[in-house]
Amino acid sequence: MADDMTAPLLSDSESSADAQPTCPSSQTAVILGSGDFSRSLAVRLVGCGVRVIVGTRCVNRIPSGLFPDAVELKSQEEAASQVDCVVFMAMFPEHYSSLLGLRSTLAGKVLVDVSNAAETNTRGPSNAERLAELFPDCLVVKGFNTVSAWDLQTGAHDGSKQVSICSDSANAKRKVVQMAQHMGFHPVDMGGLSASREIEVAPLRLFPSWSGPVLVTFLLFFFFYGYGFLRGVLLPFLAQGHNVFYRLALDVVNESLPAVALATLALVYLPGLFAASLQLWRGTKYRRFPSWLDKWMQCRKELGLLSFLCAALHGVFSICAPLRRLTQHKSINAAYKQVEAGVEEPWDEVGVWRSDLYLLCGVLGLGVLSLLAITSLPSVGNSLNWREFTFVQSGLGYLALTLSIMHTLFFGWDFAFHAKAYSFYMPPSYVVAAALPCAVLVCRCLLLLPFISTRLARIRRGWESRHNCPVSQRHPVVANGV
Amino acid sequence: MADDMTAPLLSDSESSADAQPTCPSSQTAVILGSGDFSRSLAVRLVGCGVRVIVGTRCVNRIPSGLFPDAVELKSQEEAASQVDCVVFMAMFPEHYSSLLGLRSTLAGKVLVDVSNAAETNTRGPSNAERLAELFPDCLVVKGFNTVSAWDLQTGAHDGSKQVSICSDSANAKRKVVQMAQHMGFHPVDMGGLSASREIEVAPLRLFPSWSGPVLVTFLLFFFFYGYGFLRGVLLPFLAQGHNVFYRLALDVVNESLPAVALATLALVYLPGLFAASLQLWRGTKYRRFPSWLDKWMQCRKELGLLSFLCAALHGVFSICAPLRRLTQHKSINAAYKQVEAGVEEPWDEVGVWRSDLYLLCGVLGLGVLSLLAITSLPSVGNSLNWREFTFVQSGLGYLALTLSIMHTLFFGWDFAFHAKAYSFYMPPSYVVAAALPCAVLVCRCLLLLPFISTRLARIRRGWESRHNCPVSQRHPVVANGV
Amino acid sequence: MADDMTAPLLSDSESSADAQPTCPSSQTAVILGSGDFSRSLAVRLVGCGVRVIVGTRCVNRIPSGLFPDAVELKSQEEAASQVDCVVFMAMFPEHYSSLLGLRSTLAGKVLVDVSNAAETNTRGPSNAERLAELFPDCLVVKGFNTVSAWDLQTGAHDGSKQVSICSDSANAKRKVVQMAQHMGFHPVDMGGLSASREIEVAPLRLFPSWSGPVLVTFLLFFFFYGYGFLRGVLLPFLAQGHNVFYRLALDVVNESLPAVALATLALVYLPGLFAASLQLWRGTKYRRFPSWLDKWMQCRKELGLLSFLCAALHGVFSICAPLRRLTQHKSINAAYKQVEAGVEEPWDEVGVWRSDLYLLCGVLGLGVLSLLAITSLPSVGNSLNWREFTFVQSGLGYLALTLSIMHTLFFGWDFAFHAKAYSFYMPPSYVVAAALPCAVLVCRCLLLLPFISTRLARIRRGWESRHNCPVSQRHPVVANGV
Repeated sequence: MADDMTAPLLSDSESSADAQPTCPSSQTAVILGSGDFSRSLAVRLVGCGVRVIVGTRCVNRIPSGLFPDAVELKSQEEAASQVDCVVFMAMFPEHYSSLLGLRSTLAGKVLVDVSNAAETNTRGPSNAERLAELFPDCLVVKGFNTVSAWDLQTGAHDGSKQVSICSDSANAKRKVVQMAQHMGFHPVDMGGLSASREIEVAPLRLFPSWSGPVLVTFLLFFFFYGYGFLRGVLLPFLAQGHNVFYRLALDVVNESLPAVALATLALVYLPGLFAASLQLWRGTKYRRFPSWLDKWMQCRKELGLLSFLCAALHGVFSICAPLRRLTQHKSINAAYKQVEAGVEEPWDEVGVWRSDLYLLCGVLGLGVLSLLAITSLPSVGNSLNWREFTFVQSGLGYLALTLSIMHTLFFGWDFAFHAKAYSFYMPPSYVVAAALPCAVLVCRCLLLLPFISTRLARIRRGWESRHNCPVSQRHPVVANGV
Repeated sequence: MADDMTAPLLSDSESSADAQPTCPSSQTAVILGSGDFSRSLAVRLVGCGVRVIVGTRCVNRIPSGLFPDAVELKSQEEAASQVDCVVFMAMFPEHYSSLLGLRSTLAGKVLVDVSNAAETNTRGPSNAERLAELFPDCLVVKGFNTVSAWDLQTGAHDGSKQVSICSDSANAKRKVVQMAQHMGFHPVDMGGLSASREIEVAPLRLFPSWSGPVLVTFLLFFFFYGYGFLRGVLLPFLAQGHNVFYRLALDVVNESLPAVALATLALVYLPGLFAASLQLWRGTKYRRFPSWLDKWMQCRKELGLLSFLCAALHGVFSICAPLRRLTQHKSINAAYKQVEAGVEEPWDEVGVWRSDLYLLCGVLGLGVLSLLAITSLPSVGNSLNWREFTFVQSGLGYLALTLSIMHTLFFGWDFAFHAKAYSFYMPPSYVVAAALPCAVLVCRCLLLLPFISTRLARIRRGWESRHNCPVSQRHPVVANGV
Repeated sequence: MADDMTAPLLSDSESSADAQPTCPSSQTAVILGSGDFSRSLAVRLVGCGVRVIVGTRCVNRIPSGLFPDAVELKSQEEAASQVDCVVFMAMFPEHYSSLLGLRSTLAGKVLVDVSNAAETNTRGPSNAERLAELFPDCLVVKGFNTVSAWDLQTGAHDGSKQVSICSDSANAKRKVVQMAQHMGFHPVDMGGLSASREIEVAPLRLFPSWSGPVLVTFLLFFFFYGYGFLRGVLLPFLAQGHNVFYRLALDVVNESLPAVALATLALVYLPGLFAASLQLWRGTKYRRFPSWLDKWMQCRKELGLLSFLCAALHGVFSICAPLRRLTQHKSINAAYKQVEAGVEEPWDEVGVWRSDLYLLCGVLGLGVLSLLAITSLPSVGNSLNWREFTFVQSGLGYLALTLSIMHTLFFGWDFAFHAKAYSFYMPPSYVVAAALPCAVLVCRCLLLLPFISTRLARIRRGWESRHNCPVSQRHPVVANGV
């Protein structure tokens, strides 16, 4: 980019420059292979002003118009003989050996392996390492495999902008890094070629950050579903012959969902409390957390979103209640009984307040949670500064937790304390579910006590208690990172 | 960028460098015109370290503070006489001719036409072509018209990052491409100046990718609305004098919406089945699909989102039912009749299960669809790798389709097979609507049969059946693109 | 970037190049401090191919693996003595003075202050200004403080891509600007070091663009809540001893929310009307709007989203109605009374139509508003061209306003004109709230009248009425900006 800029611009003699400017070496790319990836790569490179030569076995089989006009289609031999270029291997790794005849032609060149692993748990050398074995005189660079043909054609987008690159040759790596930057990607240096296995496997991973939280949520759901089934369906049937199996489809689900939502929301804020306690106890922020805590803290966003999902489903299922045949049946029979009794239903002031208050808290809690979910969107979250992010995630998060707990408490009202609520000596799901969130909220309030919060703030600003700092380093104050 | 970097840094003599560094030619931009676009362009260019000269007819009419301080305001003549610069024409194309007096001053310079077309279906030369006719000695480049003043001021964002550029002069184009990259945009080379018409029209297009899917959705809606009106309102009125015109406002709408949602969702997955069948039949993936199939496949995201929109509206309308006067009326009269009959309403086990199950499937189906909709957001979708994208779009998509069909079937229950449901020999809307999705689901299951899916996987990995490959190219295996 | 590209590539002698290429000065970064920010900065710089030296007081206290392998850990003295580098001060500003011993070593170097202000309303010099005072022989540049450690590690994302930079040394600023660009950020030149205070405070701001709209929305809510409380709860209690305080929790809230939503939506479109009137009256678009109007117009997106939030909450609260004990009570007693009266409830055609129509308008209005909200997401909005943006914001916006007004009118029906509705001479909330939106809609329609809209279109395309243009500049037509 630098070179082709200076040279023709300083001369600025249009007549010669328009007649195909002489591109320097770094601006020529050879692509071996003519599939989808090759095509997309060619489109992108041509769009960035790079000279592109596509090497294919059967030049005449390529339909015209498949590649941009600026692309030069050549035989693989001709393409490979281009000097001073970066060679992209746009073919399946099992076909690499078909190029062994070009070994001497390619010697000294930079080969970019763009392939993905076939399976997640492969053994043996990676594709790039095998390529390096096949072409020992070439400089093999791994990269671009995380980029899809789609990304290449539509231009860089935020999330997929990163391109992991590794190579044993620093010089070859730099060439490819520069080409990636030129194409609008953000190259990330992953080190030597031994890192290629990890890079190759990356595109096969299925939501690696979600597997833990999803598992936890499912386990919680099965626990609460099982608990609800036992307490509300099976035991009544066994003990009293009371057949309420129809509750399995919706009622037990809708009792479990809010319990799961509450528990997961508490799990979002629990690790932060652990971390704060650990820092307070150690008197420094410079020691690493245990790895389980680190992992847990990295799952908070996912746990929060799953909590929101459960809460939203609970909301929708609850709102659907009047559409259920069961509700209509109950409502008609309630009216029937009232008529039989011969009196209007008496005014139930407490019942009215209770239902209104728990609906209010529930709706507001879900509303706050949905604001949190919106700020979890990459494009929204990235536009927040640190203080805004903290305000949303911590401030609004604890507000949502508080509202959810109030929703549960108003729902429970005094029934939660009646002996009748504890059928078979088992408390209702919502009592079980509310225990952990209440504990989290109480601990959080403890951390807000002045003498604790001051100490914590000092620690987080880099202060260390005596026993952490060797005497020799105590004066002057160590310059700590921001 | 390259030049002003090397020069002052290598000397590194701060005293001279601070006294206005001598910028090389490529880093000077002249903007003719002083409107909104000019202002925003100047702000951005100055922010990128480019020297900016704004040429305007009435320098003294520009309020101070309108442009950044670093901008040099000059008369148009003075600005145009700047050597070695890129000249942006930030004025309406109808005013180009007012600059004819500067023809000789501008000769040999790069003029960037940033204007939009006035109408979509213009004839005659594009603005850029007219500019090239007016200034035959200049190097006209088309570009930046797709960038709004807003984009310029707030910095590059993902979606609007692409800047289409075309010119007949390769050298001039390269200068502008470099300036665009320097400003943080992703320039896309569109070829010669004849492409300028298409570039000029682009900002006038109104959701070009949505027009087809929206039309299809509206047509389906009108079909189902008409069908519902005929079957549920008009024929009962004509045949039995039964006045149910009140059903037009909400009931018929809410019968049509789920039918449309189901049909559109089936249309999302139908083209994929066609494509797979075609590949199986042809025995290769290297032949292009017919263009109607290509277009259809490119509409899948939009069709899916419209399906989600209809399903969501259906959900909301259904949930609103208890707020309707009609529902309240029916509920009161049901209770009244029960009292008149003198017995409690009997327990309806099947009805309870049925309503709970179709609500469960409906809510879960809508929930899965909303996850799909969220991953359609650019910032979310871009952060998925290919496998995750496939899992979401195909896996979750078919899950949503299955749940929607189950929702319909549970809703239909055995009533769907009663003669009574076929009033006037017309099946209910949901039976009509469910036919296509059921067919899609069955075909999809067929494709999962081992011997079919294996063959398809081989074809998609580049294998070709005999009759597609000329004998001469069969050994060794052709290196196919990834 | 330019330099290390040309040098080794032109020689292309792999043997020597692989043995640690000699990086030019601009590509070396020294980071003083070893905290979180230092670590993240090092990771990013190394990933961009920059040579990174971290200077820390206690090299042996840094756990291995904390920094990437490529980072050179040295003592602060050694690190500071590196020639030709950019020095990042990754420490708390209160520790700057601990480096005074390195004053002579650092002389002539570029120091980058990356710190944030401690409080929003600080007095005295900014951190960067204090740094410049402490090291008068250094070239202090302010920047990167708006970038979080997270942004650095995950690569640039759209929103946080901008990096505000200021310095009194143009040369130093350019070095840092180039490094920021190299790291994938979009540097914005904010001028001299006096701008550093504003830059330092930026990360402490809490949603500055939201404070006004949120305040307005809250005030409107309190007004309507107070009004509803007075009219529907307090006065009936005082005048008739009618105790309906239970309405405070949900009913009055749910009467206030739609009123606030309507009023805020009207406030979104009001400033546009003012602006158009002002342009019509002045006969030019080239005079600035009064600042209150400018500010108001910049709040429209936030007002619109708050309107959507209120409308959505109103929708959810309304849909929750059947879950309320109150509704169940009323429904049972309605049936009871019907039975007592001994007749079925008569068919209420008007009531059925009315409720269906206002539900239809309400749901559709909320649906359109939610489309508007979705296009407010940065990643969606950025992918729209200007015409699409206008269509969505203006076209769909007015559609939402119209539907909301119709929702209100259908809800009011003829009851709005009964004397009974005006208890205590106070009209119901929705009548009060609908007044402004109706006025906005009428004014908008006036602007669509042919002779007004034509004149407005001409003005917006740059035409000016006589009295705005001095005679000398009238021929030829002034070249106006696009």
